[in-house]
Amino acid sequence: MSITRLDAGARMSGAVIHGNTVYLAGQVGEGESVTDQCKSALAEVDRLLAAAGSNKSKILQTIIYISDIDYFAEMNAAWEAWVDPANTPARATSEAKLAAPKYKVEFIVTAAI
Amino acid sequence: MSITRLDAGARMSGAVIHGNTVYLAGQVGEGESVTDQCKSALAEVDRLLAAAGSNKSKILQTIIYISDIDYFAEMNAAWEAWVDPANTPARATSEAKLAAPKYKVEFIVTAAI
Amino acid sequence: MSITRLDAGARMSGAVIHGNTVYLAGQVGEGESVTDQCKSALAEVDRLLAAAGSNKSKILQTIIYISDIDYFAEMNAAWEAWVDPANTPARATSEAKLAAPKYKVEFIVTAAI
Repeated sequence: MSITRLDAGARMSGAVIHGNTVYLAGQVGEGESVTDQCKSALAEVDRLLAAAGSNKSKILQTIIYISDIDYFAEMNAAWEAWVDPANTPARATSEAKLAAPKYKVEFIVTAAI
Repeated sequence: MSITRLDAGARMSGAVIHGNTVYLAGQVGEGESVTDQCKSALAEVDRLLAAAGSNKSKILQTIIYISDIDYFAEMNAAWEAWVDPANTPARATSEAKLAAPKYKVEFIVTAAI
Repeated sequence: MSITRLDAGARMSGAVIHGNTVYLAGQVGEGESVTDQCKSALAEVDRLLAAAGSNKSKILQTIIYISDIDYFAEMNAAWEAWVDPANTPARATSEAKLAAPKYKVEFIVTAAI
């Protein structure tokens, strides 16, 4: 099966396509609030999925990190406003500090193409 | 390749089948002790794998979160009492706070069908 | 699709091959410094990938844990010295305590074959 890398850099690629599956780099977002960061990160997920020939209705698995577990409800509200309710992925969420203190949420997405 | 979603809800699905691979939502369990929560969560893994046409002998990867790394030995004992010793997955374990303070362990399972 | 397990033990396997994809167990390394632990863990990744008939140019996704987010820059330097710059994976990094206090970094690798 072929491997195609999108937004490829020397440290990581934004997305890697292998056969009918695409793996996205963990996406963080800009903004101050959890809601704004979710919107920004999930817009980037949309962009990368589109570039890979996929879309949010084809997400298989999403692993979510939030920097404070108290953000869980706010993240869920932003998630549910974005996700395709008829085609939701397997999901897992935990608390984890992220690459920079300003980041409050990160989404690691695997999707079908 | 087709996508089939099991126990689908508006936030997440319990399991998502893509071709010959199934991705399970992170599973937490009920009970007070780490052992009881592992048993409960892994019983749910069994149920979801069966619904997907798989079983624990076909697990490919398991990512495990424990809310206190001191639970490592107790989690491992419960894991080893459950896993098929002839067909163990690739595994990784780290400490992470989970969605609610009562949860001490979570299993994120990917399996073949 | 067939499943092949490498370095299989009663708790986990070092790598599990499913069709054209290989899932590696989380790899930690020996040594005192983050750099030395990265080198040691990534050498083990190389060994497991080779045993699976793959190599680092075919890595699809890498999830990285560091026990202190302040290790981010040092981990990145060791990562960039090792990874194939023309074929980088999707990547995500967060802080997480690992199985033993001495471990500072862990790499969870999924690759194509």
